[in-house]
Amino acid sequence: MTTQPRYMANAFNGDESELEPDLQTLSRRRERVLAPSYRLFYRRPVAPVRAEGVWLFDAEGRRYLDAYNNVPAVGHSNPHVHRLVSKQLATINTHTRYLTASVIDYSERLLDLFPAPLTKVVYTCTGSEAVDLALRIARYETGQLGVICTSNAYHGTTAAAAEISPSLGPNNSIGPNVVLVEAPDLCREDPAEAGERFARRVRDAIAELAARGLGLAAMIVDSVMSSDGVQSRPGGLLAPAATVVRDAGGLWIADEVQSGFGRLGHGWWGFTQHYLEPDLVVLGKPMGNGIPIAAVVGTEQALDRFGRDIRYFNTFAGNPVSIAAATAVLDVIERDDLIDNARQTGEHLLAGLRRIAEHHPSMAHVRGSGLFIAAEFVTDPDSLQPDPAQASDIVNRLRERGVLISVSGPAENVLKIRPPLPFDPTHADHLLAAMDVVLA
Amino acid sequence: MTTQPRYMANAFNGDESELEPDLQTLSRRRERVLAPSYRLFYRRPVAPVRAEGVWLFDAEGRRYLDAYNNVPAVGHSNPHVHRLVSKQLATINTHTRYLTASVIDYSERLLDLFPAPLTKVVYTCTGSEAVDLALRIARYETGQLGVICTSNAYHGTTAAAAEISPSLGPNNSIGPNVVLVEAPDLCREDPAEAGERFARRVRDAIAELAARGLGLAAMIVDSVMSSDGVQSRPGGLLAPAATVVRDAGGLWIADEVQSGFGRLGHGWWGFTQHYLEPDLVVLGKPMGNGIPIAAVVGTEQALDRFGRDIRYFNTFAGNPVSIAAATAVLDVIERDDLIDNARQTGEHLLAGLRRIAEHHPSMAHVRGSGLFIAAEFVTDPDSLQPDPAQASDIVNRLRERGVLISVSGPAENVLKIRPPLPFDPTHADHLLAAMDVVLA
Repeated sequence: MTTQPRYMANAFNGDESELEPDLQTLSRRRERVLAPSYRLFYRRPVAPVRAEGVWLFDAEGRRYLDAYNNVPAVGHSNPHVHRLVSKQLATINTHTRYLTASVIDYSERLLDLFPAPLTKVVYTCTGSEAVDLALRIARYETGQLGVICTSNAYHGTTAAAAEISPSLGPNNSIGPNVVLVEAPDLCREDPAEAGERFARRVRDAIAELAARGLGLAAMIVDSVMSSDGVQSRPGGLLAPAATVVRDAGGLWIADEVQSGFGRLGHGWWGFTQHYLEPDLVVLGKPMGNGIPIAAVVGTEQALDRFGRDIRYFNTFAGNPVSIAAATAVLDVIERDDLIDNARQTGEHLLAGLRRIAEHHPSMAHVRGSGLFIAAEFVTDPDSLQPDPAQASDIVNRLRERGVLISVSGPAENVLKIRPPLPFDPTHADHLLAAMDVVLA
Repeated sequence: MTTQPRYMANAFNGDESELEPDLQTLSRRRERVLAPSYRLFYRRPVAPVRAEGVWLFDAEGRRYLDAYNNVPAVGHSNPHVHRLVSKQLATINTHTRYLTASVIDYSERLLDLFPAPLTKVVYTCTGSEAVDLALRIARYETGQLGVICTSNAYHGTTAAAAEISPSLGPNNSIGPNVVLVEAPDLCREDPAEAGERFARRVRDAIAELAARGLGLAAMIVDSVMSSDGVQSRPGGLLAPAATVVRDAGGLWIADEVQSGFGRLGHGWWGFTQHYLEPDLVVLGKPMGNGIPIAAVVGTEQALDRFGRDIRYFNTFAGNPVSIAAATAVLDVIERDDLIDNARQTGEHLLAGLRRIAEHHPSMAHVRGSGLFIAAEFVTDPDSLQPDPAQASDIVNRLRERGVLISVSGPAENVLKIRPPLPFDPTHADHLLAAMDVVLA
C-alpha cells in the first residue's frame, strides 16, 4: 500500500495488491523515480502499450475504447500526423527567430478559422503557458491586476495559472487578485435564466475586486466549463457575463484548450456557441495531437502593446515539427469532416444516455455539446444531492469492461465523456451498451 | 520599414529592403500574423529550409555553420532521434496517468546521472515551466517567498519566471519578492576572488529580503550564467554562494537548461563544476533535441511535501514521444562520446580564440567551458568599456560568411558560441578562420 493520493477525482488509491504482478513492479519502480505529484487513473491503473484511432491496447492484447482522451483529437497514432511530423523531423526543426514558411502558412490558416478581429497569434508549448501569457498580456494592456474565473475552474499549472485553478484542491492557493464566481449549474438552475444569473455573479465579483482596491484585467472561462461539471449550453450562456466584463474595461479570455478544434460540433471554437467574441483565445491540448503546441490568439489591440514592449520568446514553441503536427490536425479535421462527426455522434450519444437515464433516476442530468458530454449522478432525484461514489464506481466498472471515461465537477459526480473526434456512432453504441450493463 | 524591435540583442531591425524579394514577402506575411513579440535574428534574417548535424541550408543551397543552437544538442535532424520518435509516434502517445514502461526506464536512467540525493523527477514541456514549478516547490517547502537571482538572469517566460529574468528588458517587472545580485564578471574581477565576492553579495541580498520582511525560499542560478555574459569558471565559483543560501534556509536551484546534458565538457551538469549539490535542478532545451521536454529533478525532501499536497499534472509532459526523443539524446551523447568531444573541441576553440585575441586587443577576454564559449569585446583594453557595437558587427559579418553565433551579457558585448555538441575541431577551425577574416 503506497502513499494515498489526494485531491484528485478518479485517482489510483495506491493499493498495488490489486495489480497484476508485472504492473505491481512497474508501479513500484515508477513511485521510486517520479515525484509524489504524479497520480494514476482508476482503481486498477491502465497500462496501454499501443493505440490506434479510438482504441488503446495493453500488453495482454486487451482493448479499451477511449472515450476520455481529447489530446489525440484526430485519433491515436494518426498516420497523417505521423507522416508530416516524421518528414519534418528529418528536414529541420529550429525556432521562430529564423524565417520559416511553414510556420507562417499554418498561422494564416489557423487565423482564418477565427472571426475577423482575432488576427494575431503567439505560440507556446502548453495550454498552461498560453493561459499564463494571456494573463500577462491582459494585465499589461489594462494596467489592472484583477482576474475573475469560475469557482471550480482549471486553467493550468504555472504559478499564475494555478492561482486561477481552484479545482487543484485546498492546498493550492487562489491569488489575492483573483475572485471566483460560481459557474452555471445546468442540473439545478433553469437553463434559460442561467446566463443572466451568472452575469449578476460576475458583476458582484467586479465589485468585490473594487472593494479590494483592484481593477479588472480579465475574466477567463473555459468555453465548455469542463471542471465545473461541463456547462456548455444553451447557446449564448456566457454572452451576458462577457458584456459585463467588457463594460468594466476587462478583457474576455476564452480558454479553448478543452473546447477548441471542433470538439463541440458547432464550428471550430466553443465561444461561438456563446455568441461572444473574445479578446484573447487560449488553445492547447488537441492542437498537435500530442506533440506539444499551444497558442494565444488575440486581437491586434490586445497583443500590440505587450508585444512591442516585452520580449516573449518560447524556445520550442511554433517550431517546424510542432507546426507540422498542428497542420496535420487541421488537415484531418477538414478531410474527415470531424466537426460534423462530433455533432452527429454527440447527438446520438446524448440521445442514448437520455434513454438510459429514463430508467435510472440517479442519472439526473445528461448534457453537453458534440463530443464533450456529461451525465450527472445524484443520490435522489428530488434533492439532487451529488453522488460522487456512484459516478466513481461507474467509471471504474466501465474501465473493467474496457471503456475509458472519467469524472468531473465540483462534487466529482459528473461522468466526463470526451473521446477522440473520430469516435463514431458505432463506438457510441459500444459505450452505451457497456453503460447499460454497468448500471443494471 | 516595419516596427522597430526593442530590447533584444542581435535582433532584425525591421528593414525589409535588405532582404531578397522572396524573404521580403515572407517577412511581411509573418508580421501580419505573428504578434509583435516575435523578433528575428540578424540584420539580414536567415531562412533555413534544411539542417543536418552542425549545418543549416537555405533555399538557395547556401550553408551556415551552426555555432549557436543548443537545442539540437546531438545535431540537427539526428537520425537516431528521428527513428525513435517516429516509431513511438506510430505506436502510442498518451500521458502519465497510465502506466508506461518507457517513461519509467528513462527516468531511472536520467536520475542515475545525478548525485545520490537527487532521486526524483517531474516532467514539464519547457524550461520556463520547470523554473516556474521549481519556484512553486521551493516556496511551498520553505514557506517563504523571497528569491535571489543574478542581475542579468534569464530563466523563462511564464509570469513567475519572467519576474526573475531581468534580461527581458526594462518593461518586464522584477517581482517584489525578488532581489538581484550582480553576477561575477570574469573579465573585470580576479577569478580567484570572484566566488567569495559573489557570496558576499548574496549575503547582502538575503539581508535586503529580510529588510522587506521576506524569508528566503531559494536562489536560482544558471550554472553557466549565459545571459550574464557566460561566467562559468574557475571550478567552485558558485560554491560559496550556495553555502550562504543553504545556511539561510533557502534551496539552491541549479538552472541547467543551458549548461546541462554535457555541454560544458565535464560531466553531465554544470553544477558539478561549481562543487555544489543543488536541491532542485531545472532541465530543458537540449533534453529532447527540439521535441519539447523539460524537467525538475530534486531531492526527495524538496519534492515530497509539495508533491503530496498539490496536484501537478502537465498534459504533454513526459509523454512517450517526448521520452523517446529524450532517450535518443542520452543514447547519442553516450555512443558518440559527445561530452568528451565538447571538452576537446571547446579547448581547441578557446585556444584558437585566445590566439586571435593576442592580435586584437579589443577582444579583451575569452572564456568558457566545453562548447559554451564567450569572447568579450571592449572599446579599449585599459578601461575595459564594453563595445556592443563591435560584438554585433562581428555577429552579423560572421552571418554573412555563413557562420551563426550571437551575443550575450548585460552590455551585449560578449560573443556567445554554443554549437550543437557534434561540433568537432574542423568545425572550430572553420569558425576561427571566419573570425580571423572578419576581425582583419
